[in-house]
Amino acid sequence: MKIGKIVGTLVASQKEATLDGLRFQVLKNVSVDGTVKDDYVVAVDAVGAGLGEYVLYASGSSARQTVVTDKRPVDAVIMAIVDTWEVGGQVKYNKANGE
Amino acid sequence: MKIGKIVGTLVASQKEATLDGLRFQVLKNVSVDGTVKDDYVVAVDAVGAGLGEYVLYASGSSARQTVVTDKRPVDAVIMAIVDTWEVGGQVKYNKANGE
Amino acid sequence: MKIGKIVGTLVASQKEATLDGLRFQVLKNVSVDGTVKDDYVVAVDAVGAGLGEYVLYASGSSARQTVVTDKRPVDAVIMAIVDTWEVGGQVKYNKANGE
Amino acid sequence: MKIGKIVGTLVASQKEATLDGLRFQVLKNVSVDGTVKDDYVVAVDAVGAGLGEYVLYASGSSARQTVVTDKRPVDAVIMAIVDTWEVGGQVKYNKANGE
Amino acid sequence: MKIGKIVGTLVASQKEATLDGLRFQVLKNVSVDGTVKDDYVVAVDAVGAGLGEYVLYASGSSARQTVVTDKRPVDAVIMAIVDTWEVGGQVKYNKANGE
Repeated sequence: MKIGKIVGTLVASQKEATLDGLRFQVLKNVSVDGTVKDDYVVAVDAVGAGLGEYVLYASGSSARQTVVTDKRPVDAVIMAIVDTWEVGGQVKYNKANGE
Repeated sequence: MKIGKIVGTLVASQKEATLDGLRFQVLKNVSVDGTVKDDYVVAVDAVGAGLGEYVLYASGSSARQTVVTDKRPVDAVIMAIVDTWEVGGQVKYNKANGE
Repeated sequence: MKIGKIVGTLVASQKEATLDGLRFQVLKNVSVDGTVKDDYVVAVDAVGAGLGEYVLYASGSSARQTVVTDKRPVDAVIMAIVDTWEVGGQVKYNKANGE
Repeated sequence: MKIGKIVGTLVASQKEATLDGLRFQVLKNVSVDGTVKDDYVVAVDAVGAGLGEYVLYASGSSARQTVVTDKRPVDAVIMAIVDTWEVGGQVKYNKANGE
Repeated sequence: MKIGKIVGTLVASQKEATLDGLRFQVLKNVSVDGTVKDDYVVAVDAVGAGLGEYVLYASGSSARQTVVTDKRPVDAVIMAIVDTWEVGGQVKYNKANGE
């Protein structure tokens, strides 16, 4: 999995029928030290995450292993909202403190 | 998923039989700020998208989760036509305005 | 899918038994404007393509969705021979004209 | 598979229900000569590995082929703790000696 | 598939139970002209390949389509030992001649 930050949303009214009702979030990838990078992915939200939140997303066939994405043409899913992560004993992000 | 812009088409008459009738679109990848990049993918169209449109495409096994691509040797599918997306509160693309 | 040009062949007599009889082609990747690049992939041929031809290949689990590759340890398959493709209204390749 | 070094942990309380009880480890990729690199992956731990250990992880659908990750939205799993590896007859890492 | 050269081995005693008895080989990627590169992958050996040999390996879910890797958390498998490959009519490698 990779860490992403939700920076926006995408709307598509004309789509494969099984996608109705899913929410597309625009994520920027986050490096392990907390830097928000320029490369992005559009992911379906399976956990009710909101703009600005740091999330964990899964790619590939694993993106279809949630209740909302099962058997749908979706290759990235937000499956967790990050509370905190640390590297080398240092907290790199803590949701409670904002960033 | 990634955002692509349909820039062309590809024709192949000699192919695996299950691919008959599918439409191959040539997509260029689009960055999150709306820039059309040089790298491309050839994707099957599952939603009736046309030249010049911005679309969402899924890759890998997820590309086979549409009605037209089921069980076919296809690793990229256009599964939605983008109406609009925004990043940081700014609209980056709006189909209603053209680009 | 990606466009490749068949530039060579690979022979392997000692292999997983299910691979007997499959033909391994060496492909170089082709950019969207028709340039042959240096990076390559070895793909199984499912359509009877020959040296010098431009083909479409699928990767990952989708490479197993042809008659000859079903349930085999193969992650790239040639599933179509390209007749022509165009970008921005310009023909980038036409098999009838050679390159 | 790739070699990673466990450099930290990630906590997420709000997540897809099937992820309850799984441990998310932050791995940095390790080059074949033993250098720890900056790029990372978040993987689920299937073998009880600890901070600072060198591990082998699998990606994609293969990450779901362990007892703890079966049918879960997980695209990277630690499936082995490395004892030693060697390249060209030279030991590049030996757990018994520390690094 | 990609061409790799077996440059070493990796030992892991503590691992997912289904991996018992599998042999982990360290491969360096080989370019199409025969150059051995620095990037690597750890692959399970399904064909009895030895140190120094040039092999073909498959990645992703296709890596589980061999007798020894079926349903195991393995994302790369050696499924063939290369005898020879040629590009543009030139032999780039011939096992019979050494390199």
